[in-house]
Amino acid sequence: MSLTVIGTVALDSVTSPFGSLEKGLGGSATHFSASASYFTPVSLVAVIGEDFPQEHLDFLSARNINLEGVQKLPGKSFHWKGKYEEDLNIAHTLATELNVLLEFQPQLTPEQKKTPFLFLANVDPNLQSQAIDQVEEAPFIAADTMNFWIEGSRQALLNMLKRIHMLVINEGEARLLAKESNLLKASKIIRQMGPEILIIKQGEYGALAFYKEEIFSAPGLPLEDIKDPTGAGDSFAGGLMGYLSKTGKKDFESIKQGIIYGSVMASFNVSQFSCEALKNLSETQIKERYETFRNLARF
Amino acid sequence: MSLTVIGTVALDSVTSPFGSLEKGLGGSATHFSASASYFTPVSLVAVIGEDFPQEHLDFLSARNINLEGVQKLPGKSFHWKGKYEEDLNIAHTLATELNVLLEFQPQLTPEQKKTPFLFLANVDPNLQSQAIDQVEEAPFIAADTMNFWIEGSRQALLNMLKRIHMLVINEGEARLLAKESNLLKASKIIRQMGPEILIIKQGEYGALAFYKEEIFSAPGLPLEDIKDPTGAGDSFAGGLMGYLSKTGKKDFESIKQGIIYGSVMASFNVSQFSCEALKNLSETQIKERYETFRNLARF
Repeated sequence: MSLTVIGTVALDSVTSPFGSLEKGLGGSATHFSASASYFTPVSLVAVIGEDFPQEHLDFLSARNINLEGVQKLPGKSFHWKGKYEEDLNIAHTLATELNVLLEFQPQLTPEQKKTPFLFLANVDPNLQSQAIDQVEEAPFIAADTMNFWIEGSRQALLNMLKRIHMLVINEGEARLLAKESNLLKASKIIRQMGPEILIIKQGEYGALAFYKEEIFSAPGLPLEDIKDPTGAGDSFAGGLMGYLSKTGKKDFESIKQGIIYGSVMASFNVSQFSCEALKNLSETQIKERYETFRNLARF
Repeated sequence: MSLTVIGTVALDSVTSPFGSLEKGLGGSATHFSASASYFTPVSLVAVIGEDFPQEHLDFLSARNINLEGVQKLPGKSFHWKGKYEEDLNIAHTLATELNVLLEFQPQLTPEQKKTPFLFLANVDPNLQSQAIDQVEEAPFIAADTMNFWIEGSRQALLNMLKRIHMLVINEGEARLLAKESNLLKASKIIRQMGPEILIIKQGEYGALAFYKEEIFSAPGLPLEDIKDPTGAGDSFAGGLMGYLSKTGKKDFESIKQGIIYGSVMASFNVSQFSCEALKNLSETQIKERYETFRNLARF
């Protein structure tokens, strides 16, 4: 099967205690699709500016990611600049230059309108809804969001949530969205907003998944070499959705396995800046890391 | 087999958003032994003051905990007063009245000196070492500690660590002890200090265990009803050591299972103030909660 993602394709400038990156390849849809491309054909809906380097497009094409839905608009590409402290959980946004992102109107290609799996990466929930408006064959729809939209565009977000099957957010976002600090209570409140399945990302601690009365706790793999956490959550969602798209399944057992593949991809992604670590992974590396996760959690 | 624990038996005054407790039963050795008593015969080494209520001793005796090693000294019992915020991870110590704890000199009974399993709950590392000095038949020794000793009695702590097999501490303590923020690196540094096995408690996120090249990640069970987190770590260690003592095993597979039993006992312990939740658990409740943990982590 195939997987369509709408989100940002950006230039990222990142500083961490382990180095820095100046206008490298970034964006939610970029990390997502690079990760998902190891599992399934991916098709991208995004916007870039005239300054966007051809080499980045070449990388995405080489990963067999369909770029027909990527619009190039006059002006500069979306640029994010951030800095991580010694404790990599602490990030500071130094600049957010939206540029062409301000003009973004997602336009799904005829093929994308028939996608069986759709992921709405972190963008304005109104744009996420516009993408849903265009699909024609009732795909499995999952989405991400962030504090900025939860606080600033709550109604648009609630409208979008009614129309999706799965929400993938982090702990802080879950608490903010539900207005409830207890995660178990929050998980019930959020699922009443629409998505039947809720995935709560917990960074180095792994992830929780909620479906009906079931709960799954995915372990976090302790890592020695983390250079740049940017895109960890997007590559996680990419592995998860990529696996579902590959298998064509949406049951909770498959989602659990997808979460582990997502964790695998995120664990690689953070080991280098930008999407570097997702450039040349082998199937064997992915399978071995999956087994590492299995052994980690087995008792 | 049987299990000996040295630590504090205290009176706790606790306030949380869900109620309060005035001079109730508390202390590291208390929570530990109440928890462990569901698995194995437990024998206590501790000190109490003249004000210590007989009803608390009656409860411990009723749980078949041997109190011959509990000294009653002139003066008042150790009293801890604390307050938890809405976010129960945030605790404030309002008072620490050491009282008779200042006079504590652990004296193992002849039977305790032959114990096959010894747990050194959180007290002055010099006292922990004094207990080790008295054992006669090379028991399996595990210990807990806290920031106060890591920062204030580092050399005494390092001396003690050389003599134990397993250390059970939380994340912050591990980072402070190792002087290293990356947990994987910290786990190696700490194991070079002595203990072959390191258990890192992560509160609601579960726990990590390190042994040689192996890592185990125990899930945290999302709970709706947490009233009082006091003693969570001690009841965790009690379930773990209680299970090892019951089975007589010390291999890493058994330690993994013990960690889950520890998590089970901690999950009950936090559901009520003091040790209330550990008063009348059934074997069925413990087994069912163990299965809940198994299902939580299975993929």
